[in-house]
Amino acid sequence: MPSVDINCDLGEGFGIYSFGQDREIISLITSANIACGFHAGGPEQMFDIANHCLQHNVAIGAHPGYPDLQGFGRRNIQYSPSEIKNMIIYQVGALEAITATLGGRVEYIKPHGALYNAAATDPITASAVIGAAIGLGGLPLVVPAGSVIALMAEEQGIVIIREGFADRSYNDDGTLVSRTREDAVISSPDMVAAQALSMVKEGKVISVDGNEVRLYVDSICVHGDNPGALAALKEIRKVLAENNVSIVKALKVLGG
Amino acid sequence: MPSVDINCDLGEGFGIYSFGQDREIISLITSANIACGFHAGGPEQMFDIANHCLQHNVAIGAHPGYPDLQGFGRRNIQYSPSEIKNMIIYQVGALEAITATLGGRVEYIKPHGALYNAAATDPITASAVIGAAIGLGGLPLVVPAGSVIALMAEEQGIVIIREGFADRSYNDDGTLVSRTREDAVISSPDMVAAQALSMVKEGKVISVDGNEVRLYVDSICVHGDNPGALAALKEIRKVLAENNVSIVKALKVLGG
Amino acid sequence: MPSVDINCDLGEGFGIYSFGQDREIISLITSANIACGFHAGGPEQMFDIANHCLQHNVAIGAHPGYPDLQGFGRRNIQYSPSEIKNMIIYQVGALEAITATLGGRVEYIKPHGALYNAAATDPITASAVIGAAIGLGGLPLVVPAGSVIALMAEEQGIVIIREGFADRSYNDDGTLVSRTREDAVISSPDMVAAQALSMVKEGKVISVDGNEVRLYVDSICVHGDNPGALAALKEIRKVLAENNVSIVKALKVLGG
Amino acid sequence: MPSVDINCDLGEGFGIYSFGQDREIISLITSANIACGFHAGGPEQMFDIANHCLQHNVAIGAHPGYPDLQGFGRRNIQYSPSEIKNMIIYQVGALEAITATLGGRVEYIKPHGALYNAAATDPITASAVIGAAIGLGGLPLVVPAGSVIALMAEEQGIVIIREGFADRSYNDDGTLVSRTREDAVISSPDMVAAQALSMVKEGKVISVDGNEVRLYVDSICVHGDNPGALAALKEIRKVLAENNVSIVKALKVLGG
Repeated sequence: MPSVDINCDLGEGFGIYSFGQDREIISLITSANIACGFHAGGPEQMFDIANHCLQHNVAIGAHPGYPDLQGFGRRNIQYSPSEIKNMIIYQVGALEAITATLGGRVEYIKPHGALYNAAATDPITASAVIGAAIGLGGLPLVVPAGSVIALMAEEQGIVIIREGFADRSYNDDGTLVSRTREDAVISSPDMVAAQALSMVKEGKVISVDGNEVRLYVDSICVHGDNPGALAALKEIRKVLAENNVSIVKALKVLGG
Repeated sequence: MPSVDINCDLGEGFGIYSFGQDREIISLITSANIACGFHAGGPEQMFDIANHCLQHNVAIGAHPGYPDLQGFGRRNIQYSPSEIKNMIIYQVGALEAITATLGGRVEYIKPHGALYNAAATDPITASAVIGAAIGLGGLPLVVPAGSVIALMAEEQGIVIIREGFADRSYNDDGTLVSRTREDAVISSPDMVAAQALSMVKEGKVISVDGNEVRLYVDSICVHGDNPGALAALKEIRKVLAENNVSIVKALKVLGG
Repeated sequence: MPSVDINCDLGEGFGIYSFGQDREIISLITSANIACGFHAGGPEQMFDIANHCLQHNVAIGAHPGYPDLQGFGRRNIQYSPSEIKNMIIYQVGALEAITATLGGRVEYIKPHGALYNAAATDPITASAVIGAAIGLGGLPLVVPAGSVIALMAEEQGIVIIREGFADRSYNDDGTLVSRTREDAVISSPDMVAAQALSMVKEGKVISVDGNEVRLYVDSICVHGDNPGALAALKEIRKVLAENNVSIVKALKVLGG
Repeated sequence: MPSVDINCDLGEGFGIYSFGQDREIISLITSANIACGFHAGGPEQMFDIANHCLQHNVAIGAHPGYPDLQGFGRRNIQYSPSEIKNMIIYQVGALEAITATLGGRVEYIKPHGALYNAAATDPITASAVIGAAIGLGGLPLVVPAGSVIALMAEEQGIVIIREGFADRSYNDDGTLVSRTREDAVISSPDMVAAQALSMVKEGKVISVDGNEVRLYVDSICVHGDNPGALAALKEIRKVLAENNVSIVKALKVLGG
């Protein structure tokens, strides 16, 4: 019986500002990527979400980003590889301590935003991220299926969790369609669920140009800030269940 | 043979800005309180100083502060007890991960600046700091000898390292003379060393008003940003040696 | 015919985060207090809101706060009078340049959050705020009716715009009921409008303890982040119109 | 009689951190580029330096940078043209208000660090900077002699102050040798002064490869954080005086 993880970015509010629908989403996913205070979130949000993860048996992942609250970690910033490695270790360490206080632990790292994108294609950034994962005792990395960092991490013995995006369109080369394009985001719950199922059962998606793209995934990502996130998640769960796909934490997918 | 620890705040630069004389000081102390990025420092500085500590066999302590780079963590800011507890766990966790990467570990927590001062006298802040220490697995706390937090931490089973300031004047009630007064800082190396010796050997200091104040200390703090810090540290080491006081890490002082 | 101004805090989003319902509110008010980037907002938001103000003939006010994005400027922070004065001049100057670019001008200053509250009761903070207003060429200040800063500003020749809160409960002494109490915020549009009318027509409000409190106001403040802000504003406008109160910019209220 | 301006970046400390030797430098220059709080400095430093400028008859320039205290504004960050324009207007406006309070005014804008470098070669960034200068009523811009922004600003009617660096080496194409190279900075006061004289009297410098490079300048920049800045400035003044070059504010150089 095939299985897949469903992950979502949570804890991305800041101060007085809320973001997304964390409370509703948490019961529909198996892994939560928790913002670590650099691009969003902070100690309060990290405690709060980690606590909810433990209550709902959701895997806790660290979601480190560039220190850019104003740009939500989505802007390219010129950091040295050492700075990138160190800022990841710092952020993950902070979440590890918070999680440990609650009796849990951090199961993986998923870089955020511009850092995620840079690591997907740039070997120097990828190497810095992998260096952080090694420094942190070999924590698994959530990475785009087929990316530069996916290949490099495997070579260096870091466990990777390959993810696909159910609510984002793909180009023919397996990269995501840029958010600057109107068709970047898939909003229909039916289509989101169909893309999720296709990735899990057939290891492929259909690109915006109508072509088949190979994409083997261990985890499906849904963006919690999309207005239709809840509906999409419910539809994904329903369609996967109907097709006998079990939804479990990523490390269990890999272990199965 | 009596013994004492010598601690100093290190890693308090920020970005391009340097602060103090970390490289020279590190070989003259037994414990380094490393800034954790909220009031000063950051991932780069934390790695750098932690690395030097391990090379020089200096104990690594976490030095968490209020998130106030502009005020260097010296300003009172209205935080809830929960926020204080969480921000300490966050900062110490970050340093723990960095230190672990280097093969070391964090041995104690010393709150910084306004947080240190608040915890010394305010039971609510003290309780939040102690809660963080408990959450972090019972890390020892560096606290002012005779303070509110010293008493409360002991009651709750947290090991305390009582510290005295060799380069600061004391009031009759054992509190420090405010930095707003001209005689707050002792600059003569001879006088700094004499106060250090008096604290260690006799458990007392002479207040600014000329009276004896009881002060049993496990660790002597010297402020690295004082221009005469190096001369003072050398003189302290010389005078303590002449008086058969051994200088060792705080946990060894307590264990002896 | 009596008249009154209606003011609201706008532009208080940050980066990716939105806050309140600025676009809907702007056509229902006569004065907008624009956040200046220290407690919320930023250059983008300031341009956007200032632009909308000019389109809707809404008076532009500067809404400077403590530099505390994480606390939304609502936390007490220990600043010197000089720091307070300088940070206000900095923020107002930034908005003045932005507004001038658009062909408008800043008509008044309304301190935000903890700064507003401190200036209402603490003569030292009030003096710093007034010093900033003087330094800025004598800009009028929006202040609580009957507050310390109201009295001091008048003595020093600064025009004051006395404001009352339509959606907040008052204590017998004319201060606001603390937000920590459940009855601090008035949510029924009818009651908000009734309190607004009472302030304007009768110069009084009924306190939470049922007593009459004198309160002469030139401007009514409504909090845009209350869920019922739009309904309340519409009801206020309707009730004021029914009672022959004209709604005009504050400087016109004073000039009338 | 030829004339030239000497400019230097001042007010680049932050919080407790000092930077450079502002007090000593101010009497040796004719124009001060004052940091505006985004890459360094802040309201306190801006008041302090502006005040000293007025006392020493030094022209006040705004020195806006990217909002990146940790990177000192030297890192490339991905901003939109609108964001760049708006952040410049914000920062310059803040300094204008501060300067006006003291009875002075801002005479020009000199972008800082990564923003300066981007504007020198990238037309989109240059256009955003020029847009800010226009929005601010046509403030002159300090720009590298011969740069993209120099040409574009002139075309759009913005007065430019062409600057050369006395203490930096040049490539054959008139660009600065990267700071990553050892020979990027010229430290000998004699050589710094010789390069300054050559730029002013002959309109040229000798590149690191020994070739003549055309460089007509209205202002000479010296970096205040170089250890030899004071000695270099004194030598420049001496050599220029010996060669009958008068040292005056940039607008006087242009007007002469």
